[in-house]
Amino acid sequence: MNVVPPALSRLIADLNRLPGIGIKSATRLALHILRRPASEAQSLARDLGELHRSIRLCSGCFAFAESDPCAICKDSERDGGLVCVVEESADLMAIEKTGVFKGKYHILHGVLSPMDGIGPEEIKADALVERIRKQQVREVLIATSSTVPGEATAAYLIKRLQEEVQVKVTRLACGIPMGMDIKYADDLTLSRAIEARKDTSK
Amino acid sequence: MNVVPPALSRLIADLNRLPGIGIKSATRLALHILRRPASEAQSLARDLGELHRSIRLCSGCFAFAESDPCAICKDSERDGGLVCVVEESADLMAIEKTGVFKGKYHILHGVLSPMDGIGPEEIKADALVERIRKQQVREVLIATSSTVPGEATAAYLIKRLQEEVQVKVTRLACGIPMGMDIKYADDLTLSRAIEARKDTSK
Repeated sequence: MNVVPPALSRLIADLNRLPGIGIKSATRLALHILRRPASEAQSLARDLGELHRSIRLCSGCFAFAESDPCAICKDSERDGGLVCVVEESADLMAIEKTGVFKGKYHILHGVLSPMDGIGPEEIKADALVERIRKQQVREVLIATSSTVPGEATAAYLIKRLQEEVQVKVTRLACGIPMGMDIKYADDLTLSRAIEARKDTSK
Repeated sequence: MNVVPPALSRLIADLNRLPGIGIKSATRLALHILRRPASEAQSLARDLGELHRSIRLCSGCFAFAESDPCAICKDSERDGGLVCVVEESADLMAIEKTGVFKGKYHILHGVLSPMDGIGPEEIKADALVERIRKQQVREVLIATSSTVPGEATAAYLIKRLQEEVQVKVTRLACGIPMGMDIKYADDLTLSRAIEARKDTSK
C-alpha cells in the first residue's frame, strides 16, 4: 500500500533528481521541510522561482551574474590583461575566495568530451580566442582541473592560443597540496612535484 | 570581492539550512539547478509551495496525509485491533515497505527528551492512551528506535498503557540484522541476540 501522500511523493521525486541526493536523502529532506513551518518552504520556492529570472550569463566572461557585464568585468581595478580560464562557476568562486587573483575570467561551462559530443563549440573556445585577440590581453592562465578531460581541454586551448594569438599562456602549478603528508600523496602528484621542484636559492 | 549573484546566494543559503547539506553541497546543488532548464526549478518550486497546503495530519493516527482520516485509518481491510507506535513518518514508510504489517499506526512525531523540553504532551502520549482506551485495540506494537531516547519512550509508553488500559503491549524483536557477519556485530546487539535466543524445536 502506498502510504506517501502524492504531494510529498512529488517533492521527493524532484529532490531525488538533484545530483548526490538518493531516494532516502530525498525522503528525509522532504519530511524535514514538511515538519518545518510552511514559510520556510515558501521562501525556498520563491528563491527557486526567481533564480533563472534574475541570473544571466555575462557576455564578456560567461559568468553567472545579475548584470551584464558582470561585476568583475565592469571592475576597472582588476587587471584586464590577465584572463583566467576555468571550467565552471564553482571554480571561479574557489579562486575568488583566495583573494590572490586580480585579473578577469573566462568560464568555459564544460570540458572537451568527444564521447559526450562536447567539442570546442560547446565550451566557448572560439569566443575565448576571439576575446584574447580583440582585447589587450597579456597573459592567459589556464585553470582547468588536473583530470583527464581538464588536461585535454587545457592542451587544446594552449595549442590554439599559441597558434592563433601568440599570447603568453600559463597554467596553475601542480604539486603536493598544503598540509599533505608526503607518504599519502599519489604517485602522479609526487612525480609532478619532483619534476617541478624549485631552486630555493632563487 | 563577492562574486556570487544575490539570487544565487539566497538559494544557497536556503539549501544550506536543510539537514546534512553543508555550504559546499548547497553551492553545488544551486549551480546544478541554475544549469538545468528553468522549468525544473519551477517544478520544484511549485511542489514546495503546495506541500503544506496539501498535507495535514490524520486526526486518527497523526500520519501526514492529504485526507483526514488517512488512507490507512480509512482502510477497513486493515486490522484496527493492532496498533503500531512509531516515532515518525519515515518509520511508518519503512514498515509499510515490508508489506508484513497489516494493522494501523500511531505516529508520535518525536521521542521523550526532557533536556529539549519534549515531554509526554509533545509526543501525543495522552492521545495514544485515549485512543487505545476508546477503540477496541487488542495489541499495541511499540516500534520506537533502539536508541537511548527511543528505549526511554518505549518504557514510558509500556508503563502507562499497562497501568491505564491493560492492553497487550509488544515490541519489535532485537537481534542480529539479516546479512550481518557475527564478528562485526556490536556487543550490545550480540548480548541481546543471545538473551533472546529462540528454541528451534518450537
